[in-house]
This record gives sequence, C-alpha cells and structure tokens, in this order.
Amino acid sequence: MDIKRKQLAKGFIQVYTGNGKGKTTAAIGQAIRAAGAGYRSLIIQFMKEYPYSELKALKHFQEYITIEQFCGDDFVYKKELPSEDEKKKARLALQKVKIEFSKDNYDIIVLDEVIVSIYFKLIELQDVIDIIKSKPANKELILTGRYCPQEIIDLADLVTEMKEVKHYYQKGITSRKGFES
Amino acid sequence: MDIKRKQLAKGFIQVYTGNGKGKTTAAIGQAIRAAGAGYRSLIIQFMKEYPYSELKALKHFQEYITIEQFCGDDFVYKKELPSEDEKKKARLALQKVKIEFSKDNYDIIVLDEVIVSIYFKLIELQDVIDIIKSKPANKELILTGRYCPQEIIDLADLVTEMKEVKHYYQKGITSRKGFES
Repeated sequence: MDIKRKQLAKGFIQVYTGNGKGKTTAAIGQAIRAAGAGYRSLIIQFMKEYPYSELKALKHFQEYITIEQFCGDDFVYKKELPSEDEKKKARLALQKVKIEFSKDNYDIIVLDEVIVSIYFKLIELQDVIDIIKSKPANKELILTGRYCPQEIIDLADLVTEMKEVKHYYQKGITSRKGFES
Repeated sequence: MDIKRKQLAKGFIQVYTGNGKGKTTAAIGQAIRAAGAGYRSLIIQFMKEYPYSELKALKHFQEYITIEQFCGDDFVYKKELPSEDEKKKARLALQKVKIEFSKDNYDIIVLDEVIVSIYFKLIELQDVIDIIKSKPANKELILTGRYCPQEIIDLADLVTEMKEVKHYYQKGITSRKGFES
C-alpha cells in the first residue's frame, strides 16, 4: 500500500448496535477508511466461523487490516448454551485484545459481534467492561452487536443504533452471498 | 483481484438513513463485501468533493469498485441554496446512473448522500423516485443520507435507520481524518 503508516494519538470507544443491517459492515468500512489514512486495524470476529465475503476482499489490505475469527455460533441454531470449549475460544479472543492494547501493531481494534456474544452467554459482560476500561488512550475500540447493555453504552463515546425500518427478510429473502455474508 | 467476476441475478433497493454514524461506511463496506463475492460496484457521491480517506483505500479495489464525486456541499456552509451549476452536476450524476442501468458494468450502484441532497434541494425527490422505479431487476441500488422521505421508504426493500444514541461531537470533537473523513 502506498499510504504512509500513521499512529493514532487519541482513540475513542464506538458501539454499533440495534436490530438493523450494517453494524459489521460499518465497522469494516471504518477500518478501510482508516487504512486510507494510514491506520492499522485488527478485526476480531465473534460468533462467525464461516468465510464471509469480506475476508476475501480484505486480503487486499493485509498490510493494514488483520481479521481473525475465534469462535462460532452453532450453539444458537442448536438452541443450546455455548460449550465450555466455545467460551474458552472467546476468552482467548479477549486476551488477544489485552495483548494488543500493550503493543503498537494496531490503532483500531474492532470486536465484531462481541455485544451479542454477551447476550448469548459466550462471554461475560464484566469481561467486556474490563476490556473497555483498559483501552489505552491511543487506540480506537469498536464494538458491534445487537442487544447492547446500558453499562456499555455508558462507557462508550459514540453509540449508533442500526434500527430496522424495513427488511427484505420480511419478504422471505434469506442471507445473500456478498450482501449479508 | 483473484476473485471471479459474477453478475447479480436479482437486486434490491437498500436505504441507509438516520442521524447516526455509519451510513456511508455501511454502503462502502457493502461494496467491499460484494467485491469479495465477485460483484462490481459504482459508488456515486453527492455533496462530497474533498478527498475522503476511503477514496485512497478503495484504489485497491479499482477492478471491482469505482467511486465518483459529482458535486460539493459548500452551499450548506454558506447557508445558501445550491447554485444552478451544482444542481446541473447532480443531474449529471443521475443521468450516469440511468446509463449504467442499461449496461453490465456494475451490479451494485450506491448513491451516497443522495437522500440528504433532496433535503438540501440539490435534486428533486421525483428524479430520485424515477431512478428507483427504473432500476433493472439484476442491479442492487443503495441510497444513503439522512431525512429520508416516506415515498422512498415505501419503494425500498430494506431500510435501516442509523440512530445517534451518543456521539463524541457532543463532547466538542470534530471530524477526524480516517474516521469521519
């Protein structure tokens, strides 16, 4: 990439929540916009194990955007609680964040679907609060996922609710490759 | 890009509106996700003339994503109505869309900030309605911008409202390079 690497002086806490489309997309779009300005992002995806189209596209930004998946969401479809194994993987993801907080590799850390992971008991609210509170001043932290607890809203600098006004799912259209997945 | 070009069989009409952050970012993220699946996008930006960071980043996708700016937004800051010259440029942008509707160059057409351009009288609601109604079945049309008129919501398949719950602008922070611009 012919863009000069820059380092963030002051970062904020952003939250994208709500039942509407565009939470993950906005977070990834944010990482790409930041790449254009020279900032590096680490995107950690929770509850996503299969290869979303964005993984393929983001390979073009590998110098600026790293994307890692730690745990799946099969348990939701099975209507089960997450297994200890899945919970362990999710905790590893949070440990990775803490490690990166102490390093200069990334300016922006996106925890994609971390908020809904609390709702599904994959991770503890308190663990996410600990992460938010330990964010260093020079990093941006972006959290996405529906069902955002008030405690997280209180800690965030910027909260956007993606509200579904109308959705083609209502017409019986399911997830489309390249659009929702 | 090592991704095989695909063509969309059936496209929808998506709207991202509301006063919150993430409308343009979601639309651009959508184009990138679609690029990962092999679809081509044309992004036409209204009321944006200066070089946003995404323009730089999107150069890496030039085979899959084309971005064009047609008119500025100086008149908003001057508290004036848009000049005839600006309105003419905006109409040219809509003509470009009509031309692309009849071609196979793009699967997805994003009209970024087209909705707020109606509010600021840069373009006519009826002209945008005409565009929406003339969308061919095999193209996706994505419109962004706050203050979405009900007529457009009625015509759309998917409408998401980005609702500002909390914003650091409230703390006196202005637009940041790589984040909002």
